[in-house]
Amino acid sequence: MNENLKIKASIITIGDELLIGQTIDTNSAWIASSLNNIGITIQRRVAVGDEWDAIWKALEEEGSKSNIVLITGGLGPTSDDITKPLLCEYFGGKLVKNQDALNNVIEIFTKKLNRPLIERNLKQAEVPDNCIVIQNKRGTAPGMWFEKNGIIFVSMPGVPHEMKGMMEDYVIPALLKKFSIAPIQHRTLLTAGIGESFLAEKLIQFETSLPEHIKLAYLPNYGMVRLRLTDLKSNSQSILIDEHFELLKSTIQDYLVVDQDLSLQEVVAIKLMESGKTISIAESCTGGYISHLITQMAGSSQYFLGGVVSYSNEMKHDALNVPSEILKEFGAVSTQTVEMMAKGIRLLSKSDFGLATSGIMGPGGGTDTKPVGFVCVGFSSEHKTISTSFQFRFDRRRNIELTAINALDFLRKNLG
Amino acid sequence: MNENLKIKASIITIGDELLIGQTIDTNSAWIASSLNNIGITIQRRVAVGDEWDAIWKALEEEGSKSNIVLITGGLGPTSDDITKPLLCEYFGGKLVKNQDALNNVIEIFTKKLNRPLIERNLKQAEVPDNCIVIQNKRGTAPGMWFEKNGIIFVSMPGVPHEMKGMMEDYVIPALLKKFSIAPIQHRTLLTAGIGESFLAEKLIQFETSLPEHIKLAYLPNYGMVRLRLTDLKSNSQSILIDEHFELLKSTIQDYLVVDQDLSLQEVVAIKLMESGKTISIAESCTGGYISHLITQMAGSSQYFLGGVVSYSNEMKHDALNVPSEILKEFGAVSTQTVEMMAKGIRLLSKSDFGLATSGIMGPGGGTDTKPVGFVCVGFSSEHKTISTSFQFRFDRRRNIELTAINALDFLRKNLG
Repeated sequence: MNENLKIKASIITIGDELLIGQTIDTNSAWIASSLNNIGITIQRRVAVGDEWDAIWKALEEEGSKSNIVLITGGLGPTSDDITKPLLCEYFGGKLVKNQDALNNVIEIFTKKLNRPLIERNLKQAEVPDNCIVIQNKRGTAPGMWFEKNGIIFVSMPGVPHEMKGMMEDYVIPALLKKFSIAPIQHRTLLTAGIGESFLAEKLIQFETSLPEHIKLAYLPNYGMVRLRLTDLKSNSQSILIDEHFELLKSTIQDYLVVDQDLSLQEVVAIKLMESGKTISIAESCTGGYISHLITQMAGSSQYFLGGVVSYSNEMKHDALNVPSEILKEFGAVSTQTVEMMAKGIRLLSKSDFGLATSGIMGPGGGTDTKPVGFVCVGFSSEHKTISTSFQFRFDRRRNIELTAINALDFLRKNLG
Repeated sequence: MNENLKIKASIITIGDELLIGQTIDTNSAWIASSLNNIGITIQRRVAVGDEWDAIWKALEEEGSKSNIVLITGGLGPTSDDITKPLLCEYFGGKLVKNQDALNNVIEIFTKKLNRPLIERNLKQAEVPDNCIVIQNKRGTAPGMWFEKNGIIFVSMPGVPHEMKGMMEDYVIPALLKKFSIAPIQHRTLLTAGIGESFLAEKLIQFETSLPEHIKLAYLPNYGMVRLRLTDLKSNSQSILIDEHFELLKSTIQDYLVVDQDLSLQEVVAIKLMESGKTISIAESCTGGYISHLITQMAGSSQYFLGGVVSYSNEMKHDALNVPSEILKEFGAVSTQTVEMMAKGIRLLSKSDFGLATSGIMGPGGGTDTKPVGFVCVGFSSEHKTISTSFQFRFDRRRNIELTAINALDFLRKNLG
């Protein structure tokens, strides 16, 4: 077994907003993924409110179970924040002004925000005198690194981009150094068009054949399933995991999208960039979501020229040139209409490829022949204009997500 | 004190995918919000992997701290799921076939999915004989309600829409009945244009004046701060909380968006529906995200006619009629261009109002005069076409989100 596996970590997230459901905790997943990549196993994640006893108890409990306890939240400027004085007392220190943190707060307020400094902002520069201070390059609250009985406790702000900056710049490198960690081996692939249980059925024999130190994980998300092989032994074994990964690929080859840890939109982006081709998108039922998925990626302007969100029939006709007769005869949700939409957006934007969606996302709008969840997707290139249709059975939000993913997969297949 | 406050709940989320960061846990926030609405306080949320000892220990620990333990995840069809046999053993029962659950599985596979039933799907209809079975109307895995030493444990699938169905149809009503719960009073308002610390500074006196049983919470999200007053006493006190809420409103009136628990896009939707007006959106830097935020809401086709994602200059010119001279002289990111875009989309879609965004989201593309995070937003109606600009300082994803929220707020202010 890899020595790393003896290193166990816990994440403690602090904040009343997590317990009343106001905030979705994205920090824990990000931290878990970062630590997992360097071979540190998260064994527990705990969220507690801004309450002295609850935080204290969580520190005790997680400190007794793990070697590393990463804490986020509870460091903001408002009065309900008690984390810092608590940490100070828990580790037996006293609060002192930290000059670097103070300079940082002053710089952010006077230079960047151009706002007056108030007392509660200045207090953010106070830190316990028995921790290593982690400077915050993206905000005003400094991070803190404590050690007690050989256990490491790191406290960071709850603002995601501030926490990520500290993790990347300081915490991850410091942990790698501290524990002399050998990275765990992962091999990941993405499948589409098959559910988790059917995939598992096809992989019974493959799973049985795996040595004990290689694990297979099913990671379903939005109608696609990611499969991940993890080799828990040290990295001298990479040939072995590669052999098993090849076997895995050939076993599920009919459903394989890509044999790397990429999202579908990343696969599409790579294909377009490599071929030097461009895309544009006409969205009805997805309402801009596919364009958003693409433009969220840096550099997307290289291959994405734009789109039309043709929610009304007039927009389909006026902006995309879908003939009124087509709309009248076959309806806005039809293979005929999405083909014209895909062609229309391609010609309007002068792109190489056009993609189009139209469907009934719910909760209203369904009919007997076109129930809620019925979706048409069109693709157009210089050489062909084609379409397909799907029937989903979920709520509006999930129907939009599934339509987007399946449309992108239809695009991917037709990019050649 | 309200009797409800003695009822404490914990959430346990089960699944390796949570500990390797593959999945963001949205279930916990949704459950916390649902329970909070009926006055049950979540005191801890814990996530553990698909590991026998870890789950067992979490049941013991949370069961010793809370009256209600809600468990999600670990009930899927793949082989790594051990939750059901564990629960069976923990509560001292044995697995038996449940006819209703079996009928449900058969119906889903044969009628809805039109796929063959395999052994591991049939096994989903097995349940411990010492629980109340909660039928799953949206999937194959049934839920389970156990009681042990007066503590309630409810196990539900991790698929969000399946879990939500069970909570709404069965768990929430059953908890209300079991504990004769009197709902907690909440009053919520939404502010924009002011940071959490400055808001807190303005509210020092207000906070000091609150009686002990009324609490103020700051809930910041994407450049907006939601303020929530909670009355922990029984609901006979609603006049008192209303008085404090009025005082809160007048104290922060310059930043008040709406005095209800609504999102900005909901506020915009209500204004448009009430006035019978329509909107269309031209997005450059936000790449379809604003259209997505609007079309995610059911019924948005009543007031949203469509949009253009004009990522390329050609799209700005060809689809939105932005004059080439404007693009050349002032650039794509300029108040002049967004004003023409807002007007262009309004005329193209024949809507009452047009909204437009153009900016530099990063990481690349910034210049000395227009650095990363510089954004212009335009608004156009029959009577006026105006614009504003912002400077954000975050990463691409957050810049997109902040641009969307600030553009929607600019729209709201100009809807009158």
